Amino acid sequence: MNDSRPIGVFDSGLGGLTVARELFRLMPNERIIYLGDTARVPYGGRSEETIRQYGLQDARVLMGMDIKLLIAACNTVSSVALDYLTRHIKEAPVIGVVQPGAKAAVLRTAERKVGVVGTRATIASSSYAKAIQAIDPDIKVYGKACPLFVPLVEEGFFRHDITRLTAQHYLYELMDLGIDCLVLGCTHYPLLMGVIQETVGTRIQLLDSALWTAKEAQDILTRFEALAPAGVDGLQESKFLVTDLTPHFETLARMLLGQNLPKIEKINLEELTEEIQK
Amino acid sequence: MNDSRPIGVFDSGLGGLTVARELFRLMPNERIIYLGDTARVPYGGRSEETIRQYGLQDARVLMGMDIKLLIAACNTVSSVALDYLTRHIKEAPVIGVVQPGAKAAVLRTAERKVGVVGTRATIASSSYAKAIQAIDPDIKVYGKACPLFVPLVEEGFFRHDITRLTAQHYLYELMDLGIDCLVLGCTHYPLLMGVIQETVGTRIQLLDSALWTAKEAQDILTRFEALAPAGVDGLQESKFLVTDLTPHFETLARMLLGQNLPKIEKINLEELTEEIQK
Repeated sequence: MNDSRPIGVFDSGLGGLTVARELFRLMPNERIIYLGDTARVPYGGRSEETIRQYGLQDARVLMGMDIKLLIAACNTVSSVALDYLTRHIKEAPVIGVVQPGAKAAVLRTAERKVGVVGTRATIASSSYAKAIQAIDPDIKVYGKACPLFVPLVEEGFFRHDITRLTAQHYLYELMDLGIDCLVLGCTHYPLLMGVIQETVGTRIQLLDSALWTAKEAQDILTRFEALAPAGVDGLQESKFLVTDLTPHFETLARMLLGQNLPKIEKINLEELTEEIQK
Repeated sequence: MNDSRPIGVFDSGLGGLTVARELFRLMPNERIIYLGDTARVPYGGRSEETIRQYGLQDARVLMGMDIKLLIAACNTVSSVALDYLTRHIKEAPVIGVVQPGAKAAVLRTAERKVGVVGTRATIASSSYAKAIQAIDPDIKVYGKACPLFVPLVEEGFFRHDITRLTAQHYLYELMDLGIDCLVLGCTHYPLLMGVIQETVGTRIQLLDSALWTAKEAQDILTRFEALAPAGVDGLQESKFLVTDLTPHFETLARMLLGQNLPKIEKINLEELTEEIQK
């Protein structure tokens, strides 16, 4: 059995495109509807209440487009609002990026000491520590908020000296704690993978939540016999929606997913939200 | 004659508090209603259309509170949306932060070469160049977008090595052009004044738009005989409204305006906007 409906993926902005990239790599026939709330990015420094409200608005827009699986490709939303979303969204399974990243960390840590980097909201929620220790309570989890990493990605400073100095500032403290795995708990961070790996050295393994989330999505669709039929060019038939469109965003999106990305469309979230509530 | 109504001041977030600070220094009897749109900060990387929409929503909330003067204490809004605001707001005079900063630069530059730093949207608009050259077309104006400065301020890295390296990255290019004045074209930037001055050296004078905007407000209120009556403790009788409240915001606000800042209140912009439109 197949299900030709698209997968819905949303994020506060660009970062969730790293999840979309891994989905296309694993399942090139899947169509995605991506929603980036670029008019209100970033979510990572906002209050829980606001993050829940924004996350549910994003989710409802995608649910109105007949999707078969919803992915909250935003660590901030996955950390503080996933339960809230699953209570409100009943028409399709909902997954976040925290559980898959946490499972990977449990499988990979030999020393049973895991570091997690993320936004202020993600780290304050202790979401990764809770998810990891729910599987194995003996694993120690050390979190560190890195609020400058997202702006550095958005500035395109992937291998800049400023990024190196910032990575050292945030990461040396975690390294001193003897971790052997570091979870990149923000979908923007895989874009800084090079500098982060240089900073922490090869003894510490980096775990990219985006990759493990794509694997989880594949497992679910396989289990429900809901994979897309063969012969579809998933990327070309996908939709990319943003709540604010600037040339800068378009450049970064093409850099991430390739020059043959379909046209990015701007939608008005306030109007759509009002329509849905009617 | 006096006018005891408050001054309305809005910004995308915290930065406009530097304008509020200068207003209290110059006119300690004035009450202010401050609105920081912290649920959607920052505005600086968004499209013109979105900045106009957000700016008008902010302005309308304040206009509903019977203010005598409206200050758009946000360089991004002042750069791309001030004409739009003055077309829609008729009940009180509206001023931005670009004109006052531009006038100061014209008065101060001897070499007739001025640098301007600001957000991506402010610099792309060439608002300072237009305002300066409308007064003196022979002055050369060089703009440089510094998108990392706002996140550095929000992280509290006022005198950090990362801030120094970032300042060097952005400013060396401007220094090579022979400017003798540098306009801080973003209300967050005065908080980095120390590092910026160290970076550019004492030969280049820094001009803080916040200070010059407060002087402009004082001129207008004096001209209209609308200054507040004496004997009022302006700061203590002011209101500070935000669209999202986090402990981090509160800490930074108290650092800027002092520990005796009145309680910061959270408002719901979407609900207020709907009410106003009814």
